[in-house]
Order: sequence, then C-alpha cells, then structure tokens
Amino acid sequence: MSAHQAPILAGLRVVELSAFVAAPLGGATLAALGADVIRVDPPGGGIDIDRWPLHRGRSLYWAGLNQGKRSVTIDTRSEAGQRQVSKLIAAPGEGGGIALTNLPVRGWNSYAELSKLRPDLIMVLITGDRDGGTAVDYTVNAAVGFPWLTGPEGHDGPVNHVLPAWDGMTGFLAAVAILAAERHRRLHGEGQLVELSLADVAMAVAGHLGLIGEAILEPEPRGRYGNDVYGTFGHDFGTRDGRRVMVLALTPRQWLSLGEATGLSRDFSELESRGGADFRKEGDRWTHRKQICELLDPWIAQRDLAEVRQAFDQHGVLWSPYQTVKELVAEDPRASTANPLFAEVAHPGLGRFLTTGSPLRFAAAEPVPPRASPTLGEHTEEVVREFGLEP
Amino acid sequence: MSAHQAPILAGLRVVELSAFVAAPLGGATLAALGADVIRVDPPGGGIDIDRWPLHRGRSLYWAGLNQGKRSVTIDTRSEAGQRQVSKLIAAPGEGGGIALTNLPVRGWNSYAELSKLRPDLIMVLITGDRDGGTAVDYTVNAAVGFPWLTGPEGHDGPVNHVLPAWDGMTGFLAAVAILAAERHRRLHGEGQLVELSLADVAMAVAGHLGLIGEAILEPEPRGRYGNDVYGTFGHDFGTRDGRRVMVLALTPRQWLSLGEATGLSRDFSELESRGGADFRKEGDRWTHRKQICELLDPWIAQRDLAEVRQAFDQHGVLWSPYQTVKELVAEDPRASTANPLFAEVAHPGLGRFLTTGSPLRFAAAEPVPPRASPTLGEHTEEVVREFGLEP
Repeated sequence: MSAHQAPILAGLRVVELSAFVAAPLGGATLAALGADVIRVDPPGGGIDIDRWPLHRGRSLYWAGLNQGKRSVTIDTRSEAGQRQVSKLIAAPGEGGGIALTNLPVRGWNSYAELSKLRPDLIMVLITGDRDGGTAVDYTVNAAVGFPWLTGPEGHDGPVNHVLPAWDGMTGFLAAVAILAAERHRRLHGEGQLVELSLADVAMAVAGHLGLIGEAILEPEPRGRYGNDVYGTFGHDFGTRDGRRVMVLALTPRQWLSLGEATGLSRDFSELESRGGADFRKEGDRWTHRKQICELLDPWIAQRDLAEVRQAFDQHGVLWSPYQTVKELVAEDPRASTANPLFAEVAHPGLGRFLTTGSPLRFAAAEPVPPRASPTLGEHTEEVVREFGLEP
Repeated sequence: MSAHQAPILAGLRVVELSAFVAAPLGGATLAALGADVIRVDPPGGGIDIDRWPLHRGRSLYWAGLNQGKRSVTIDTRSEAGQRQVSKLIAAPGEGGGIALTNLPVRGWNSYAELSKLRPDLIMVLITGDRDGGTAVDYTVNAAVGFPWLTGPEGHDGPVNHVLPAWDGMTGFLAAVAILAAERHRRLHGEGQLVELSLADVAMAVAGHLGLIGEAILEPEPRGRYGNDVYGTFGHDFGTRDGRRVMVLALTPRQWLSLGEATGLSRDFSELESRGGADFRKEGDRWTHRKQICELLDPWIAQRDLAEVRQAFDQHGVLWSPYQTVKELVAEDPRASTANPLFAEVAHPGLGRFLTTGSPLRFAAAEPVPPRASPTLGEHTEEVVREFGLEP
C-alpha cells in the first residue's frame, strides 16, 4: 500500500545499556518495529544474562527480551571502553543519538557528558524510584496496594501478581518517551533527557484506574474479591471435566447473552424481581453476584468444556477457558503460526520455537518478521567496524 | 532549557472513540503529555460512564481514565452525528487527523470511509482478538496462563491479577502506535490504519518474558510459587507489629546487603557450605529459598516494621513494606504533593483529591500539571464551534 516499503521505525537507532525487564522490553518493542537497537553489555554479560527461565542452561528470559537487537560487549570499566560506548551513542545520523538505559548514569555516561559529543542527544533513563533510589517491580507492587486486592477472598496475606506488570508498562512508556523526544528533535532540533520511574508509573496507573481517588475519598475502599471483577459481573467456574472458565457480563448485551446461552434468563428475571434489581445495570449485577453465581455454577458444573464452549460461543457470551501456558501453545490457535504474530524462529543455543513479533500492525509499513535473539556479543565486531570504534 | 517551551506533544490532536481501559488510557497518556485529546461519547455517556469505583454516584474510573481530555457528546446513531464526528476526526492541521478507538468500526467510521475525508488519516484500532473478536483483559489473562502461576502455593484454582495489566500495556502501546505512525506521516506524508489486539499484546509479552519458549521447550515449566520470585530470591515476611514486607536479592550486592543488615551472613555461609551452593548465583538462592527463609523469618518476625526499615535501608537491602492503597496515600511520601507527579486537583462532581500527571519527565519541554477529568460533554459546544461542526 505504501510508496515507502520499510518497517515503520526504519532509520531509528537506539543504544541500550540495560538489564532486567523494563529497559530491554522498551528496546525490544522498538526493534520489533524495525529500529536498529544495539544492546551493550559487559563481556560475559550483565546482571540478567542468566535470569530464569532457563533452557539448556541458557536464559529464555534474556533471549525473549533482546529479540531482534544487535548485541555488543564492551568493558566500560576501562576508559577506552567508555570512549567506545560514548562514541557509539553519539554517532552521527538523523535517527541516531538515542540512548535507553536503566543502569546508574554518572560521570562518563551521564546526559551532561554524552551530550557534549552530540548536543541533540536523547537519553531515556528508567529508575526504580523517582529520586533514583532502588526499586523493582516487586517492591513497587508491594507499595502500591494491589497485593491486598489480588488473590482468593478470605486469604490472609498479600498476593503478588507474577506478571511483572509495572516493568512491562514502564518498558512500553519508555518507547513512548523515545518517540515523543524524537518528534521534538525533528521539530525543534534539540535533544533531551527523559526520566521515568517504576514507582511513578505504578502510581499513575493506580490513579487512572480510580484507585487513588477511591482510597482518598471513600471510607471503605474495595477489598479482595477473588476472581470476581469489581463493580460488574465476572467470576470463574469449574466444568464437569475439571477445567475452569472465566465468565463475564460487562455490557447489557453480554448479560442477555449469558441468560440465553444457559437458558437461565427466567431465573435471572426472578432474581431481579425478588431483589428489586435491574441486571442491565452493572452495579446490580455486582451486588447480586453470589446469587447469580449460584444459578450459573450448577449449569457449568454439569457440562464439559466443549459443551460450555459451544453454548457460550453460539450466543456471544464473554468468556474464556483458563489455560496454562502449555495449553495455550498446544491448543489455542491464536498461539500458533496461524496467527501472523508468530513464527517458528531458530534462536542460537536454544533451538527453534514459536516466537512473536510486534503486536502492532501498520498498514502502510513493511512488517518485521519475528526475529531471533542474538548471542551475547554477536555483533561486537560488526558494530565496532560500522561505527569506527576501534580503540 | 528549551527554546521551545511547550508540552512535549503540543500540536498533536487525537479524537478518541472509546470505552473501558486500553483506549482511554492511551488517550490519557498522550493528553498528560500535552496532546489535545477529544473523547467523543453518546449523549448520556458510553458503556463505561458508570464503571466502579464510584464516589457520590460518579465514576472515579471514568474520571481517572479521561483526565486532561476534552469531552464531547454526539449521537452517532444519526447520520448528522456521524458527519459531525467524521469532520472532527478529519479536521485539518498538521497534528490532527488522528483517531484512537476500541469501538466497532464499520461503515461511516471505518478507516476506508474516514480516509476519504483526509487521505493522511491515522487510525489506531484496538480489538480484543486479532480477528476483531470480543476479548477483554480478564478473558485474555485466563487464556495466556498467568492465573495458574499467580497466588498462594498449593492453592487449587486460577488466581486473576486484579490490575488490568493487559489493558494497561495495550493502552501504552496504542500511544506508541500513534507516535510511530505520526513520525511516518511526517517523513512520508501518508497516514495509515494501525491495529493491535489485547490477546496479541499478552502473548507478545509472555514471549518476551520467556514463558512461551519455556512452555514449548521444557517438559516441566514453572509452577505456582506464591510470592516467591522465580529463579532468584524474593519472599514476603511478617513483622512483629503485624505488617508484611517483600524482601529480595536480585544481585550479588543485594544478597550481601541482606546478610549484613540482619547479621545472618555467617548463617548464610554455613548454609552454602552444607548445600554446596554459592548464593551469589541467583539459581542457588532459588534452590535454597526455603532454608534462606527459615533464617530470615524469625529475624523479621521479632522486629517491628520501623526496626526492619532502619536495618534494611541502612544496608541497602532491596525491600518494601506491603501497603494498602489507603496506606500508600496516607504514609508514603511518594504518593503526596512532595512528589511532583502529584497535585491536588478539583474534579467536577467528585471534589479535590491527589491526582497524577504523566510519569514521563522531558527536560526540554514544559511539564503538564496534573489535570481534572472533564464532565461528560463539557466541551461539546466549544468543539462544535472550534471545528465548525454545526449540523
């Protein structure tokens, strides 16, 4: 369709000094859209080189977070190494001069020093706390309140979510930061330092979801409600064949579908009459959720997953089976090469497996196929030559 | 510092046709950086206008997700309304011609129709499934495997995370999509449709974190480990005064700190000798986590939070108290106006409360202060006048 068939971020070059999730995910997000992302690690690898999960002793985590990047190893404990990395970051080119890091920046790798080499430098710096203090997904999550809302009703302690959600969101926001700063540079010719912290991201999201306002304004903010979806109808049920399903009704239409699919419309109506409720209203579905579940529970428990699926899909119920990751890749066509998100990719040292590209699809740009992770230092020589970094 | 003191996204205009979390969060993210984001709803509000949590009967959720936007109500069931919205989306201006939506697009509001009015139109379309099928955060989460990894060890069923993490990540990626497409338009003069789905985002993130590779390559992928952090050391403990703390050692330095802060270095060394382990290695910390916890547990249980805090902070331990959202806003200085992320903002119909701006800080752009949410339709007349939308 486009007269300019290239990946959407072709021409953008980002040098990444990073570890763990947020910064590498930000870089991987840009790489999956065609940016040239060069991750620099110390020889032997950074702190995250052996992070679990492992396969054949090699980190699947490191591989997944560095897909599609070039990997360079340079020892920045030496001044010569510092000069090499500085030169790489500040290398000329309209789309270059962009650094992404979550490592400590002081001295040679500070914005002040690096921008002497390239005044229009863009640097995105991710920290734990806003003041630069150490914080990670797990400490931020503990501080911001979600572990007291997550987990089975009546459970006694905090429940962490296993997904490093704050890392993920921070990584994607780092990509927003780079693109916003690059737009500014294109318009006004100047670079800048952009800072963001995991803690600020988590609190901003809690604010957007209304939780901070609720905690300030309401004497009794929400509690822990298991898998129920606060303020509307959502609950998990067991099927006859031992599977679990998540069932929701977020809209009036979805609520009607649920009655139609199960033949329980009349029972739901009677429940409404008895309770003076109107289940087209989400608050009323929430208030009467236990009684609604008492009606749904036996209907689902008496059927195998296949029967539940047929009835629910036929009537447009909003639902999903719970799947393990193994079940996802074994049974769900969305997690297969039938979905262009995926391809079978051979990763050095790990073997071939189903690998994703970017979930973003740009109609007027060339898609970037899912790409392998580099081996550590795979591109060192190539990058040294390309950017004239010989010591 | 900058010669161009304006917010970083000044000049960008986005028309949002949306509901629930992902698309509104994408718009709110851009609005918090100074873009002019105009959300269009039907008179009386869209499906999410009354979404919980509520205060005085008004949705704190809707308010939080629409901060800093202009709110317009137009009835798009009529052709006149459809023409108004089409004209607004396609209105001239270098930074205009951008639509963000998660609502069904067919007919008048499809990319094909709208781009007839403005050929360089950018539209970012969020769906549930890639094929346009209905899916929401809760169904996607059930499908992708995290509920079997989340929650107390030994718990019997799936445990949903309460944070709508896939919505959040999708919202931030939608902002990436808009900025990447706008860069392309600036370079090549053409607009485009960009699509992304919640399900693809979740699977891509699971891939980046190594979970999909693990499920394919490993016969026994990870299980459910409560609040322990897989493959390294992280665990939650109770203090003498009934608080809970999350304690981690992700790096060799953090591991040493933990021994120093608690005086348990020698005990840890003995445990290493007995087990033939080296706790500088994360895998060894993971394998021996139960024994490590047996040593740490009484040390923490015998101390109040204040003592734990003092010892841990003095030695640079990576840790956090668990806080409810109430405790966060009452006790944590990061969630106060001492943090420039926050300001006290008066929201119409809700009152004054602590409100966040963008967690991104651009050194060469004017910060956008935290802003109020609009009332529904607050800017209808203004926008109709400004863009000449009189029917």
